[in-house]
Amino acid sequence: MSLSVKHLLGIRDLQRSDIETIFQTADSFKDVLQRPIKKVPTLRDTTIVNVFFENSTRTRISFELAEKRLGADVVNFSASGSSVSKGETLIDTVNNILAMKVDMVVMRHSATGAPHFLSKHIDVPILNAGDGINEHPTQALLDAFSIREKLGSVEGKKVAIVGDIMHSRVALSNIYCLKKLGAEVTVVGPPTLIPKYLANALGVNVTYNLREALEWCDVANVLRIQLERLKMPLFSSLREYSLVYGINKQLLDSLHKEVVIMHPGPINRGVELSSDAADSKQSIILQQVENGVAVRMAALYLLSGKTPNITVTGN
Amino acid sequence: MSLSVKHLLGIRDLQRSDIETIFQTADSFKDVLQRPIKKVPTLRDTTIVNVFFENSTRTRISFELAEKRLGADVVNFSASGSSVSKGETLIDTVNNILAMKVDMVVMRHSATGAPHFLSKHIDVPILNAGDGINEHPTQALLDAFSIREKLGSVEGKKVAIVGDIMHSRVALSNIYCLKKLGAEVTVVGPPTLIPKYLANALGVNVTYNLREALEWCDVANVLRIQLERLKMPLFSSLREYSLVYGINKQLLDSLHKEVVIMHPGPINRGVELSSDAADSKQSIILQQVENGVAVRMAALYLLSGKTPNITVTGN
Amino acid sequence: MSLSVKHLLGIRDLQRSDIETIFQTADSFKDVLQRPIKKVPTLRDTTIVNVFFENSTRTRISFELAEKRLGADVVNFSASGSSVSKGETLIDTVNNILAMKVDMVVMRHSATGAPHFLSKHIDVPILNAGDGINEHPTQALLDAFSIREKLGSVEGKKVAIVGDIMHSRVALSNIYCLKKLGAEVTVVGPPTLIPKYLANALGVNVTYNLREALEWCDVANVLRIQLERLKMPLFSSLREYSLVYGINKQLLDSLHKEVVIMHPGPINRGVELSSDAADSKQSIILQQVENGVAVRMAALYLLSGKTPNITVTGN
Repeated sequence: MSLSVKHLLGIRDLQRSDIETIFQTADSFKDVLQRPIKKVPTLRDTTIVNVFFENSTRTRISFELAEKRLGADVVNFSASGSSVSKGETLIDTVNNILAMKVDMVVMRHSATGAPHFLSKHIDVPILNAGDGINEHPTQALLDAFSIREKLGSVEGKKVAIVGDIMHSRVALSNIYCLKKLGAEVTVVGPPTLIPKYLANALGVNVTYNLREALEWCDVANVLRIQLERLKMPLFSSLREYSLVYGINKQLLDSLHKEVVIMHPGPINRGVELSSDAADSKQSIILQQVENGVAVRMAALYLLSGKTPNITVTGN
Repeated sequence: MSLSVKHLLGIRDLQRSDIETIFQTADSFKDVLQRPIKKVPTLRDTTIVNVFFENSTRTRISFELAEKRLGADVVNFSASGSSVSKGETLIDTVNNILAMKVDMVVMRHSATGAPHFLSKHIDVPILNAGDGINEHPTQALLDAFSIREKLGSVEGKKVAIVGDIMHSRVALSNIYCLKKLGAEVTVVGPPTLIPKYLANALGVNVTYNLREALEWCDVANVLRIQLERLKMPLFSSLREYSLVYGINKQLLDSLHKEVVIMHPGPINRGVELSSDAADSKQSIILQQVENGVAVRMAALYLLSGKTPNITVTGN
Repeated sequence: MSLSVKHLLGIRDLQRSDIETIFQTADSFKDVLQRPIKKVPTLRDTTIVNVFFENSTRTRISFELAEKRLGADVVNFSASGSSVSKGETLIDTVNNILAMKVDMVVMRHSATGAPHFLSKHIDVPILNAGDGINEHPTQALLDAFSIREKLGSVEGKKVAIVGDIMHSRVALSNIYCLKKLGAEVTVVGPPTLIPKYLANALGVNVTYNLREALEWCDVANVLRIQLERLKMPLFSSLREYSLVYGINKQLLDSLHKEVVIMHPGPINRGVELSSDAADSKQSIILQQVENGVAVRMAALYLLSGKTPNITVTGN
């Protein structure tokens, strides 16, 4: 099994068959993660550098665990205190890392398109761990993988994405991924955060009415509100956002069916999601986190060009 | 061998037999650390996350070395730059880490009781690496282990703990540990830092006279003065503290016997301890550091539920 | 093969034969780095601590990769957030690390002589990764190794070092290394940054005319301008420096022969080196980075006292 792409830059570049290949591979790795011994020697003798120009403990740890469980050697690089702050260009930084004969690069960058730019200049596989307001492909893959696990498949399912659609790379990657897999997508949130042209361009339904979206959907993927971006005219306060677009257990219980609740984390408890909703039985938030490691193992393995070698390391 | 507890949250929860089991196990690991090859495959295929919400290079490196010498895979998480600063709750952070199928958690937190709270919600063993002003159990274990190594046993020995007793988690864990092992404990320091009710509650002797304590004891465990806390009426300056409660070689030489000098580090040289005292023959400060790795290996191993497997990794 | 020194503190302390031994060993490791499997078990069961009191992503990652490819266990220590900021002395910090039975120390420090001071107090090999304005020996070794690789040998070659000679530890280590290997050295830069007495003391030629130096040399090693230090009377602005001492492709093409271009990185593109010069065919800047890992593997191995064991780790 292999992918039609050399890098994992965005879901936009993937074929549906690529996504399905990643899911089938992730199934195998998820089995490995249920064993007492969770490590395989698949990427033994492979060196992976995690280059994080933006802080992200959660995504970085998930990648680091995926890499270590594949037996890779891992070097972490974060921008703070690096030569980036000495004025070095992005490509110099990465060229230097590559000159050290690194085999793969996982990269997060605040600039949209940074990993795409690099992929034109370097030879080893790059995995985009989030670039600006563009894409966060492994998040979308783990989200869709979690829906498939919970509901049997993604095809034909109705998914509402709730929140700041305009600025969210999680939303964009999710929309690409869900549509390629045959799901129906509705985006929900304040009009200021969902321009009409954007929804049209992406081919998704729009509503500004949360209850309407919840009544319609099988799954609600609730985005994190980036507190620093909430300087909009319509929603002048967090409380206002929370009152109109926050999801709590009472609201969920008032629906005529059960909606699966997802969130990419970290949750602003009491803002976009109440604690009783986040911790309810219909929430699969922690399964998303668990699946993240398996999906990232699958993506790393498939891009590495190695043989899977899913056997238990001896004791 | 196994412990009566599932987590190592504090010495208060341990049986005397638990402490003795840890010491006997640490003896074996200390033998390993004297070999040219210091690594054992005991925790091979085990993933441990070090979650440090407070900075502590020394304790973190000691745990990290202990984990790596047991063959574990190690992921470090520090709060700065993490989603904790994005407002995530403690339990969300740890639940996320656990959802990634981590096998053990070592945690330091500025909030008293943080690891106890977590232990009620999560399944894997937690080791407390210091919580607020409560406990620092591995420090107390390595301190008592070092006394046992130096003097043959802890039972019946006289230990003076010198300094800011009221705020010190090292002091509290040491008092619990020493008393369980049958030592006599006297606390020494300025009255403002040793309230009478505290000494009574803990069942230790109190004196405000350093010389008197030193004449009495076999071992003086000298606490680090937390410079930022020295805003007390009685001791208005560091120099004043140093003059009344600082220990130097001249003072030690004027006693009628030799007192073993201990310090948890980092030392404020010239404040609580002069350099000639810290570096004297009667100081076992560096042995404490060395023993820290062996004692932590023992605690990690015993909580892991694995078999010891103390054989040399081949070459 | 072994070295005449126990530590790698500076090039000044090395014999020419030491340098040649390091180069021959680096040749072998460079072969290893061309293989699909770049890892050897040479330092398996060896624990190395990278103690960086100054930020340096590039040098730290290069050492970390060298250590991991030798199979060593690696612990990173950086000063920020460490007990160093709690007022601990340098020797306490390192003694503590050593008491934990670490086998080698790689250290960068802003104080000139810091690693030399430590080497008098501790037993394990220390590698200087840059101390104040003194030396940066592994940089000089990888620079000379890269010249040898490009031109066949260092003996008899003409090398111009361009920039802030007075403050640069890279310049100082390079001068020592090149002269020991029989190269001729000219230093070039503004008079304020190259005091006559310094050039005399070091036994190198001086010129303040960049073109003259380039016409003369086989290799130009262009130093990074430390922007914060450019507060000098003669060169009041970066633009002025760039106009007089910056190297670009046009200048290189106007010479009567090809000059090899080197830079220790990170480059201030457009200041000391233009992009068309840095990325030209005559630039070996990325080869320097690649060679850095092999040279550091050689230095670590030779100081470790282990047998080389350059066999492929099995699969």
